[in-house]
Amino acid sequence: MNAPIVLIVGAGDYIGAAIAKRFAEGGFTVCMGRRNKDKLEPLVKELRVIGCQVHGYKFDARDEEVTKQIFKEIEDTVGPIDLVIFNVGGNVYFPILETTARVFRKVWEMACFSSFLTGREAAKYMVPRGRGKIFFTGASASIRGKSGYSAFSAGKAGMRMLSQSLARELGPKNIHVAHLIIDAGVDTEFVRERIRSSGRDPQALEPDTLMSPQSVAQAYWMLYHQTRDGWTHELDLRPFGENW
Amino acid sequence: MNAPIVLIVGAGDYIGAAIAKRFAEGGFTVCMGRRNKDKLEPLVKELRVIGCQVHGYKFDARDEEVTKQIFKEIEDTVGPIDLVIFNVGGNVYFPILETTARVFRKVWEMACFSSFLTGREAAKYMVPRGRGKIFFTGASASIRGKSGYSAFSAGKAGMRMLSQSLARELGPKNIHVAHLIIDAGVDTEFVRERIRSSGRDPQALEPDTLMSPQSVAQAYWMLYHQTRDGWTHELDLRPFGENW
Amino acid sequence: MNAPIVLIVGAGDYIGAAIAKRFAEGGFTVCMGRRNKDKLEPLVKELRVIGCQVHGYKFDARDEEVTKQIFKEIEDTVGPIDLVIFNVGGNVYFPILETTARVFRKVWEMACFSSFLTGREAAKYMVPRGRGKIFFTGASASIRGKSGYSAFSAGKAGMRMLSQSLARELGPKNIHVAHLIIDAGVDTEFVRERIRSSGRDPQALEPDTLMSPQSVAQAYWMLYHQTRDGWTHELDLRPFGENW
Amino acid sequence: MNAPIVLIVGAGDYIGAAIAKRFAEGGFTVCMGRRNKDKLEPLVKELRVIGCQVHGYKFDARDEEVTKQIFKEIEDTVGPIDLVIFNVGGNVYFPILETTARVFRKVWEMACFSSFLTGREAAKYMVPRGRGKIFFTGASASIRGKSGYSAFSAGKAGMRMLSQSLARELGPKNIHVAHLIIDAGVDTEFVRERIRSSGRDPQALEPDTLMSPQSVAQAYWMLYHQTRDGWTHELDLRPFGENW
Repeated sequence: MNAPIVLIVGAGDYIGAAIAKRFAEGGFTVCMGRRNKDKLEPLVKELRVIGCQVHGYKFDARDEEVTKQIFKEIEDTVGPIDLVIFNVGGNVYFPILETTARVFRKVWEMACFSSFLTGREAAKYMVPRGRGKIFFTGASASIRGKSGYSAFSAGKAGMRMLSQSLARELGPKNIHVAHLIIDAGVDTEFVRERIRSSGRDPQALEPDTLMSPQSVAQAYWMLYHQTRDGWTHELDLRPFGENW
Repeated sequence: MNAPIVLIVGAGDYIGAAIAKRFAEGGFTVCMGRRNKDKLEPLVKELRVIGCQVHGYKFDARDEEVTKQIFKEIEDTVGPIDLVIFNVGGNVYFPILETTARVFRKVWEMACFSSFLTGREAAKYMVPRGRGKIFFTGASASIRGKSGYSAFSAGKAGMRMLSQSLARELGPKNIHVAHLIIDAGVDTEFVRERIRSSGRDPQALEPDTLMSPQSVAQAYWMLYHQTRDGWTHELDLRPFGENW
Repeated sequence: MNAPIVLIVGAGDYIGAAIAKRFAEGGFTVCMGRRNKDKLEPLVKELRVIGCQVHGYKFDARDEEVTKQIFKEIEDTVGPIDLVIFNVGGNVYFPILETTARVFRKVWEMACFSSFLTGREAAKYMVPRGRGKIFFTGASASIRGKSGYSAFSAGKAGMRMLSQSLARELGPKNIHVAHLIIDAGVDTEFVRERIRSSGRDPQALEPDTLMSPQSVAQAYWMLYHQTRDGWTHELDLRPFGENW
Repeated sequence: MNAPIVLIVGAGDYIGAAIAKRFAEGGFTVCMGRRNKDKLEPLVKELRVIGCQVHGYKFDARDEEVTKQIFKEIEDTVGPIDLVIFNVGGNVYFPILETTARVFRKVWEMACFSSFLTGREAAKYMVPRGRGKIFFTGASASIRGKSGYSAFSAGKAGMRMLSQSLARELGPKNIHVAHLIIDAGVDTEFVRERIRSSGRDPQALEPDTLMSPQSVAQAYWMLYHQTRDGWTHELDLRPFGENW
């Protein structure tokens, strides 16, 4: 039997990489897309070492033609995609009067439009097959519009409703659509730098107060294995000590 | 004392027109924008007859320059805007595989991007004055992604989170931001046609089972008069007999 | 024509009294219930001075027989009740390990069970008439379970779902059921004392940062006047400067 | 090392039994409570056959003294409880005018008060140890008050807010509190009978359109294994074909 195929759209150094490793360890063929393909190289090598079939793509998820072409290429040359995980970020802070139309549009393209393109292309191949899974990575901003986050919240909430609408439309066609709300800081260099710039020392944090990228990957691994009589559409994730 | 000034962005034949009349009757100077300015003419005349100062604008709310220019023109030539009501629609049904990138983008531009442009321009003038009100017209799709409504829900949910973020950011600056969820069909020719095409006779409907545009207008009139110690950010509206 | 009749269940010194005054000024006959009837006397006198027909009742809303008997007495001797406003409180803070079964039960009886008794008795008289309105006063705790508020949140969330269920069941019978979420401190002696005990001076607060009881009353006055083609089921209220 | 201990409160023939089997297979010592202890016997025997340490208790979860006593007995004679799963039902349909005070109270005692007693007793033992997990089984009614379900929804929503409050209070004490929303019919004799009485044949249902109790058990198994840097508080579960 062939290995199942996962496509990770937005395979960054933290969450995306952790997802890739988790599914590689689980025997998947891993396809990964990232705007800067060079940055994928170390991860590609790392996965090959553990015997994983891995394919890296230069993938700007905001570009319709690119999205179509990469889905086609994978379907044609690697095989049928079983699971797509959309993991493109876009967290920015801008008070409303400093939010240019360009910023608002760019954030939406990253957080919402690209998730639509990915979701639709996935559906295009999965619907005729009558099976498949499409998972989206959300954030606190998906369900709460905080001061200074109008662009990011508008994008993330858009992606959330897209995923809810797809779940209702595609579920009966045997396609599992899920939305994961990460309601906390994930342990990345970006978050550690933000902690530093607020005058605290990230090294001094109590253990497990930042979310590990591995925990996000594990949540997706679990969702993948749900049987179709009991699918989760939405779940949240936060560290034990989070103030929410 | 000068009459207060309301700007209605998206002054269509039903809800927009009803809002215009309600505020005209309440003594406001009414500014109204619509993509097709000619279609505003009957309403402009009707409001003038009852003695209202009224200004109609050709206003494509998806266009940043147009939005900036109309806000500036009103502020320069009519006076300071007290209240902006964003009422642009965009309800479309498309199964995901029939949703083109163009449709997804156009629906977002109408439902979400234009609401950002209007909200930001309003904030630009209201923040320095330390007063003002910005109200947004939402829909069921703002809080629920139904099958076949991924584009519309993504846009409306984006607008909702934008409005929530603006409420948190601008409330402390004495600017009231509200979001009205219309969770039902409003009595318009569009809705009556949809009823007809589903094989029913809209004339045979029980009275008050479609929402009157006047009731939406009245809700905005009420919101306008709330004192700042007790502002509503979100409220829903539906007919008594609605199944929800 | 006879004056319409409002019954206020939980007519305390602040919100309840403000509601009573608002509806008295609007020409209603006001019936008010409170556990300690003596405390109603000053309000009864004050309303009589302005010409209001007013009736005070010793009313423990947690007691089924009392609730039945007072509804019956009003219906028999004053007239048909047009509007019931349920306004019983019960805000308490208890860490879980200090929450006795007695406290949990008492808080539920106040926040939820009594709202059921009032809602059902109101429905009993209103359903056969095919008209009436039942409004419930909720709080932040109705939609959010904060640390230390398990008893209060459980009660308030129970009341919220009761009211939502009643709205769906009774709306088509022409009975308007609404739920008002007060998401802030109301200007009462209790809240001012709590501010004092946290080391701040309530006199030094910026104006309008506590919600005035009058604003709550005004929201109910507005809800009462909605036409049945456009009823609000839920709305929130908070001061402009609230951090939420 | 000793086997970890799970206590299942409300160990009925379907979901409760499936949870017991899942954790028995996973090496747990299983403690189970049910109002009618005799009905536990077949399950106790079945689990013993597979080598599980199993303890059955006559447990009316609405009774404070019984709850205290069983927790104490388990802690004293079996060992420290690692995980408590609250799984008491209470689904009833009653139009409001047919909902007696007794019914409303009984449903709350089953759905909400007993969940409080279980949650508090669990916290009493887990807080001093600085570890433990408490999971609650919710339903569609936890987040939506449908017509005719005022008693059940009020109870379930109360339990949901209790669990949310406990999550915020106990998370920082290293205790994982989760709430599982079962948004569909589970495959039980009760549900099949309901289908029959609506004139349909449950045998003729498409496979996997009723949720298997095993899928609920598996969701709890997954939650149990989350690391504390990434805990889920709430997730939903429904079959692929569900209309929601």
